[in-house]
Amino acid sequence: MVHESGSGAEDGAMRWNGWGDPDRAKDLPRAVRALLPLLLGRIRRPEVPVELSAVQIATSALTESDLAAFHDAVGPGHVDPSAEARIRHAGGRSTPDLLRRRARHQRVPDAVVRPASHDEVRACLDVAMDRGIAIIPFGGGTSVVGALDPERGPHRAVISLDLRRLSGLVSLDAVSGEAVLASGTTGPDAESLLSAQGYELGHFPQSFRHATIGGFAAARSSGQNSAGNGRFDTMVTGIRVATPTGDIELGRSPGSAAGPDLIRVFLGSEGIFGVITEVRVRVHPVPRERMFESWSFPDFASGAEGLRRVAQEGNGPTVIRLSDEAETAVSLAQVGRIGKALTKGASVVTVYEGENAGIAERRARVGALLAAAGGASAGEGAAEEWLKSRFDGPYLRDSLLDAGVFCETLETATTWSNLTGLRAAVESALKDGFSVAGAKSYVMCHVSHIYPTGASLYFTVLAGIRADPLEVWWPVKARVNDAILAAGGTISHHHAVGRDHAPWLREEIGDTGIRILSAIKRELDPRGILNPGAVIPLERTH
Amino acid sequence: MVHESGSGAEDGAMRWNGWGDPDRAKDLPRAVRALLPLLLGRIRRPEVPVELSAVQIATSALTESDLAAFHDAVGPGHVDPSAEARIRHAGGRSTPDLLRRRARHQRVPDAVVRPASHDEVRACLDVAMDRGIAIIPFGGGTSVVGALDPERGPHRAVISLDLRRLSGLVSLDAVSGEAVLASGTTGPDAESLLSAQGYELGHFPQSFRHATIGGFAAARSSGQNSAGNGRFDTMVTGIRVATPTGDIELGRSPGSAAGPDLIRVFLGSEGIFGVITEVRVRVHPVPRERMFESWSFPDFASGAEGLRRVAQEGNGPTVIRLSDEAETAVSLAQVGRIGKALTKGASVVTVYEGENAGIAERRARVGALLAAAGGASAGEGAAEEWLKSRFDGPYLRDSLLDAGVFCETLETATTWSNLTGLRAAVESALKDGFSVAGAKSYVMCHVSHIYPTGASLYFTVLAGIRADPLEVWWPVKARVNDAILAAGGTISHHHAVGRDHAPWLREEIGDTGIRILSAIKRELDPRGILNPGAVIPLERTH
Repeated sequence: MVHESGSGAEDGAMRWNGWGDPDRAKDLPRAVRALLPLLLGRIRRPEVPVELSAVQIATSALTESDLAAFHDAVGPGHVDPSAEARIRHAGGRSTPDLLRRRARHQRVPDAVVRPASHDEVRACLDVAMDRGIAIIPFGGGTSVVGALDPERGPHRAVISLDLRRLSGLVSLDAVSGEAVLASGTTGPDAESLLSAQGYELGHFPQSFRHATIGGFAAARSSGQNSAGNGRFDTMVTGIRVATPTGDIELGRSPGSAAGPDLIRVFLGSEGIFGVITEVRVRVHPVPRERMFESWSFPDFASGAEGLRRVAQEGNGPTVIRLSDEAETAVSLAQVGRIGKALTKGASVVTVYEGENAGIAERRARVGALLAAAGGASAGEGAAEEWLKSRFDGPYLRDSLLDAGVFCETLETATTWSNLTGLRAAVESALKDGFSVAGAKSYVMCHVSHIYPTGASLYFTVLAGIRADPLEVWWPVKARVNDAILAAGGTISHHHAVGRDHAPWLREEIGDTGIRILSAIKRELDPRGILNPGAVIPLERTH
Repeated sequence: MVHESGSGAEDGAMRWNGWGDPDRAKDLPRAVRALLPLLLGRIRRPEVPVELSAVQIATSALTESDLAAFHDAVGPGHVDPSAEARIRHAGGRSTPDLLRRRARHQRVPDAVVRPASHDEVRACLDVAMDRGIAIIPFGGGTSVVGALDPERGPHRAVISLDLRRLSGLVSLDAVSGEAVLASGTTGPDAESLLSAQGYELGHFPQSFRHATIGGFAAARSSGQNSAGNGRFDTMVTGIRVATPTGDIELGRSPGSAAGPDLIRVFLGSEGIFGVITEVRVRVHPVPRERMFESWSFPDFASGAEGLRRVAQEGNGPTVIRLSDEAETAVSLAQVGRIGKALTKGASVVTVYEGENAGIAERRARVGALLAAAGGASAGEGAAEEWLKSRFDGPYLRDSLLDAGVFCETLETATTWSNLTGLRAAVESALKDGFSVAGAKSYVMCHVSHIYPTGASLYFTVLAGIRADPLEVWWPVKARVNDAILAAGGTISHHHAVGRDHAPWLREEIGDTGIRILSAIKRELDPRGILNPGAVIPLERTH
């Protein structure tokens, strides 16, 4: 059995001002620490982060009467106006979020409210509608696009609606291979509940250990096993949503022509139309076996050509990832052992899950395609190594920030024919942007989601910034977003829109696209209480 | 090469009061003719259908000024207020449509307008908006759900917007495997244009020879190769639409999290939000080889279990179809040779397309799954026979109607666990409905679209009706729709909603779902000129 551990330890509380479980924090490998000055020049030692108890926040804008109304909705133990709860729900986990968590003054929601059922969510929406209070739906708190900013819009107060009490396996239809999960169920809890009955969802984004099923749906997540299991969009077969003006339950059949697929209106809606309370997903038997193979390619372009052939042939690996030259070099430095086969060029990791006979056939067929594109097999080691540490990247970011190194990620996607052009445009925008600000940067890129017609591009940038990092970063981010759209990419392949990408969405979907979203928003949330400013910039909805 | 012929002959004008090309009309096989009295009792000889020249229609409600405005939009040769053009655009090809075409008085649009480009469609919408004239977008004219009824709603006139001059391959990106097709391109023309460059779309619904790319998108079509190539929804990677209040172009990348997938707002919109002018689709190299295998199962339930295993394993046949006992018997009577292996029980047809090595592996693996579920291989013959006649079913319906036999089809879908229950519910509703009306009926069912979590059900019903067939049929159809929804099915798996299913859509997607559709409709088409009453019943949009 190759199942991801679903032990309670995986689902621990998030570090309040960093990523994940404090016990899993990772020091920078010595080789990486040695590389940094070479890549980024002299690095400024950052100020010591503030302690949680020293954070200064505004007094809650909620009245006693407001709190009592929410008490009535969810029970008195589940409305939390404490400073700690409010600070812990102040945002997501982008690098700007983490930098803001290091400052003394922080902007936080006015309380945290924790419903435990669809009906309690419904009751919370009713209270908020009656009283004109904004609601930020909150799952695992792992947004990296500003979707959890405590933005009250035109309202007098804002609450964080923490959904993690809506947890559990509501039902499993083993014949049809479908499970209904409460939306606040975390990735590890979902897999643990399913594996007890022999099934797997198989959705493993880097946020897996903390993020929730509802968050995966609301943000159109894509996981590391997307080559085999598809992006989360394609796993969803049904959905239940509480909107401010009524409930909706969708998904009677695996295919339908009963009008437009309204499930897709809620996938990617990021809490602006309603609160997702249940998600029906396709599940499959826990795969019994796993095989690995790593590959070395002369360069990114030949590796991408290999991935294209694999994607267009179909029925390939469960996981496939191509790291460019820059990422390959640093990954090897991280694991501390640069094998001969992988010392240069680009690298590909493949993982195959399933039954032995099938995965051997798939590995052989994919291997022939990769070899024909110029790849050389590099054994199993690097792929196994990747699997072991696949959820650890964000911990390294905390260590980099502690060391004064700016580190952020961003992503996009496009067609195969446009892939290398888009990659070059984003890389230039990043490097030029930091260069204008007098900062040296190092840009790495990988492809981790492939489709017959195209692929994603995921960038990690390190920079040695001596000024205020946020003042340097936002103009760079704007330049990158402009470059992505000019070069034909999507503003986000799987991180979503939030508030950070919202100003660019109009260019991607046009005025008519924004008008469609705004019309749905006005219909379902006429007071605009839900996640104000996410997806659609605030001036559009009010 | 296994490519469908794309010769001009396939794309001929539709018979005005029946299906397809008059030269392909099919007499009833003698064996079927002999069976009918046994199954349906004494059959009434129907009245002789009216000649086109004898059809009586109302004078066009368009003024000279209206016609001049449309002339300005599309050029004077492309506005046709003639009786023949109006009669040929009076509806689709459901059995009620065909019965209405046999009557002396017919309801028709006030003119047929034929734009040749996106900009000409835009201009037509502007004229219609200015003057308050309803528009029925018209592709191949193959709707079987009343989507082409010349319904003017609250407006003073209605035109049929025939899109077949928007024809052609706009561009092909061979690296990415994507093609942009003008929306009025017919199935055979699309395949012909693509195959000239070595590519195939591979979408073969029964309407293939006449229906258009835009129609496939607008109606969420599913083709006979859906097991291998997916339903049309999943082939679409981009779309261009002219709405009454603005244009929209969507689809930058194969996967995106840039808000909800708005392409899905237009797939299934049936012309009520805008007119689709271009569709970008995934294409693949023309498959080089084809293999066949037919299977016999003891009964429908064991056959369905076999299909479930195939769907959940994945990477199976390109085509798979399960006919129940009743359909198996009649199919065999049609082909006039009842082989020993298939004389009873249910039958399965499989077709594999691709490269020789791959399809042999797939056939072997699928064969093992079907055998384990109780199937016995029955050779290649029946599957090859099916392929040859796969677009001919509708011609037989014309011959049945000529012989006085009522014949109609309908379809739904559900999860695997609910499949046999839904089938029984629909079959009972059909039989009981006809029985109440004193008519004997014969109901056949097949499964032709499979998914990991469920499958479609397609019913063909024959009835010996002595009264007015439409007066008998509508109550039966209503009873069936009620039964489908009560038993958990979707109101349509691939025929769409049109006007015939619209009153049932609310039960499927709820009040909130109808409100979402109505909000988008009001935003994009504030005067309600587009296809009034399709999808959303008229009282909702005005």
